[in-house]
Amino acid sequence: MSESRTTVVSAEWLGDREGCLRLLDQTRLPVELVTMDCHTVESVFEAIRSLRVRGAPAIGIAAAYGVCVGLKAQGGVNARERLDGIADELATSRPTAVNLFYALDRMKARARALPADLSDDDFRDELLLEARRIHEEDRQLCHAIGNHGANLLADGWNVMTHCNAGGLATSEYGTALACFFAAQDQGKRLHVYVDETRPLLQGARLTAWELLQRRIPATLICDSMAAHVMRKIGVQAVVVGADRIAANGDTANKIGTYGLAVLAAEHGVPFYVAAPSTTFDRLLPDGDGIPIEERSPAEITQGFGMRTAPEGISVYNPAFDVTPARYIRGIITERGVIQPVTASKIAEVLG
Amino acid sequence: MSESRTTVVSAEWLGDREGCLRLLDQTRLPVELVTMDCHTVESVFEAIRSLRVRGAPAIGIAAAYGVCVGLKAQGGVNARERLDGIADELATSRPTAVNLFYALDRMKARARALPADLSDDDFRDELLLEARRIHEEDRQLCHAIGNHGANLLADGWNVMTHCNAGGLATSEYGTALACFFAAQDQGKRLHVYVDETRPLLQGARLTAWELLQRRIPATLICDSMAAHVMRKIGVQAVVVGADRIAANGDTANKIGTYGLAVLAAEHGVPFYVAAPSTTFDRLLPDGDGIPIEERSPAEITQGFGMRTAPEGISVYNPAFDVTPARYIRGIITERGVIQPVTASKIAEVLG
Repeated sequence: MSESRTTVVSAEWLGDREGCLRLLDQTRLPVELVTMDCHTVESVFEAIRSLRVRGAPAIGIAAAYGVCVGLKAQGGVNARERLDGIADELATSRPTAVNLFYALDRMKARARALPADLSDDDFRDELLLEARRIHEEDRQLCHAIGNHGANLLADGWNVMTHCNAGGLATSEYGTALACFFAAQDQGKRLHVYVDETRPLLQGARLTAWELLQRRIPATLICDSMAAHVMRKIGVQAVVVGADRIAANGDTANKIGTYGLAVLAAEHGVPFYVAAPSTTFDRLLPDGDGIPIEERSPAEITQGFGMRTAPEGISVYNPAFDVTPARYIRGIITERGVIQPVTASKIAEVLG
Repeated sequence: MSESRTTVVSAEWLGDREGCLRLLDQTRLPVELVTMDCHTVESVFEAIRSLRVRGAPAIGIAAAYGVCVGLKAQGGVNARERLDGIADELATSRPTAVNLFYALDRMKARARALPADLSDDDFRDELLLEARRIHEEDRQLCHAIGNHGANLLADGWNVMTHCNAGGLATSEYGTALACFFAAQDQGKRLHVYVDETRPLLQGARLTAWELLQRRIPATLICDSMAAHVMRKIGVQAVVVGADRIAANGDTANKIGTYGLAVLAAEHGVPFYVAAPSTTFDRLLPDGDGIPIEERSPAEITQGFGMRTAPEGISVYNPAFDVTPARYIRGIITERGVIQPVTASKIAEVLG
C-alpha cells in the first residue's frame, strides 16, 4: 500500500557475483537524488565513513554487500582467504552501530560453514546469497517493527522523532518511521514533529523528505525547539531509532536522543526506541561500554559550506549519546514491544 | 583589565545631534568585522529586525539612538511632534525583548518632561543625552551583574551558556558572559561550553568569538549535545541572558533556553539567568503573557546559503521560549541575585 508510494532504496546489489553495490548518496539529499555504484571495498568504506549510507541497519546491509564487492578483487580468486581481511577492514568504518559488526560476523560465520572444497565462484555466490538474506530479513524486521509500533499510537496524535530512522536508514521501511508509516496504513492520522538533528541535519534532509514522500503531515523544527513544542503544542509520543542497545536497555542513538528522552520524561511523553533485535549487543551489560564516535569539528563549524564559527575555537562533536533505560517507555522490536525496559524483560522477549 | 583586551561595541553614537548610529553588523561575524552607519529610522528598523544588532539590552540602546536618528529627518524641525511616531515605529521591529519598549518609553517620557518652549535643536540635544544615559547605564548594569554573578562561580568549574548574552548583546560587557568575564578577572579559571544556538548560531558566531577574544577556554557544541556534556563531562552552572522576565520570574529567552533549564534540573546543575532590572516586565504576572516572535522558515531550511530541507516541508520557527521560574536557581541582576525566584523575592530585590 503505502510502500508502493515511495521506493526508498538505501542499498541494493546489482547483478550477479560480478555486480556491484548501489547506494543512494544520502549526503546529496534532499536537493539531489544521486546513486553511486561501489566496485571496491575502499569505495564502500568511504561511503559508510562519510555517511553516504547511514542508519544502523542500512550500514549493516551495505557492509554485507561490501564483503561481496571485496571478494570480486583479484578476479575473485582466493576469496575464502581474503574474506576475514575484507570484513575486518569494513568493521573499522564506524565504531558505534552494532549492526555493522553483526552483518560482518554473519558473513564470516557463513564462510566458515561452507564446505572447504567449494570453488571461488561458488563461494562468492553463497556469500552474496547471505548478504541478500541479511537485506531481506531487515525488510521483514522493519515491517514487523512498524506493525508493533503502530499499535502504540492513536489517531490524531502529535509525535516527534530525531535523526532519520526511516527507509533511508534501513532496507526500505525504517524503524521509528515504520511505526508512523504503519499507523498511516491503519488509517491513523499523525502529525510528526521532526528534529532537524544537528550537525548533519538528517532530520531536515532525510526524515522530512521521507515524510513528504509518504504525505504524512510533518513540521520541521530545530533540536532546541523540542521542549517548547512539548510544553506549548503538546506531543503524545516520541519514537527514535537506535545504533546499539545494551543488555539492560541503555540505548546509543544519534546525539541529542538522550536530551530528548529527558525532555519527554519531564513532560510525561512516552519515549520509545524502535530497533530490530540485531541492534542489541547483549554482551554489554550497560551503556557505559558503548564506544561513542567523535567526528570532525568541521561538521559544526562549517557544516553548511559557510564558516559559522571563529577560527581557533575548540569543538566537541560526539556523533551519539546513550539514553539510560529508565527514560525509555518501551523498545519496539520485530518480536514485540519490550516494556518495561529491563534486562530481564529484554532477555524474555529476545530469548 | 580584561575590558581593555577587547572593545566590543555593538552600538554607539557618532558625533553630535547631526551624527548617526554606528552598529557592528553581527550577521557578518565571526568571518568579518563590519560596521554600518544608520542615518534613517528605516535603516535602524531593518538592522534590529534582521538581527544586525541583537540582544535585549543592545536592542534597547540601538532603539534609543534610533529615535535620535529619526529626529534628524526634515532638517530636525518639528522634532517634538514626530517623536512618538518614530518611537512607535521602532517598537514594532521585534516583539519579545522588553528592553526595546523600556528604552523607547524612556525617550518618550524624557520628551514629555522637557519644557514646551525648547528649540528643536535643544530638544534633540536633550534626547541624545537621554539615549547616551541609557547606554551608559547599561554599561554600569552589566559590570554590576558580572560582579554579582562571578561570586556564584568557583575556580575550575565547567559552565555552559546558550545564545549570546555578551558584549555584543549589550553596551559592551554582557550579562551572562559578564559573569564569566568578572570571574576571570577574579582569577577563577572557567571552561565554557557554548551551545551553537540554532537557527541563527549566535553561540557559534558571537559567543565563541567573544570568549576567544577574552582568552577564556571554551568548547563549541551543538544544542543537542548539552545533555550528553552534562552527563558525561559534567557542568557546574548554566548562565543565560533574558529578553523579558515576568513578575513571577518566568523568563523569555532565546529558543532552546527552556529545554536547557530542564536538562540542568535533571542533572542537578544550577541554572541562572543574568539580566538587568530593565528586563523585568512586572505588569505581566507570569510568562504566559509574553508574546513569542515567530521568524522565517528560511532560517531553518536554508540558514547558511545551502538548502538543507526539502521544498514543501512545514516549519515552526519560534525565536524564544519561556522558562518557568521553578527551573531557575537565581536571577542575577545589578541589584544582586534574586534567589529563590519568586514574585515576592523579585519585588523585594527590585523594590
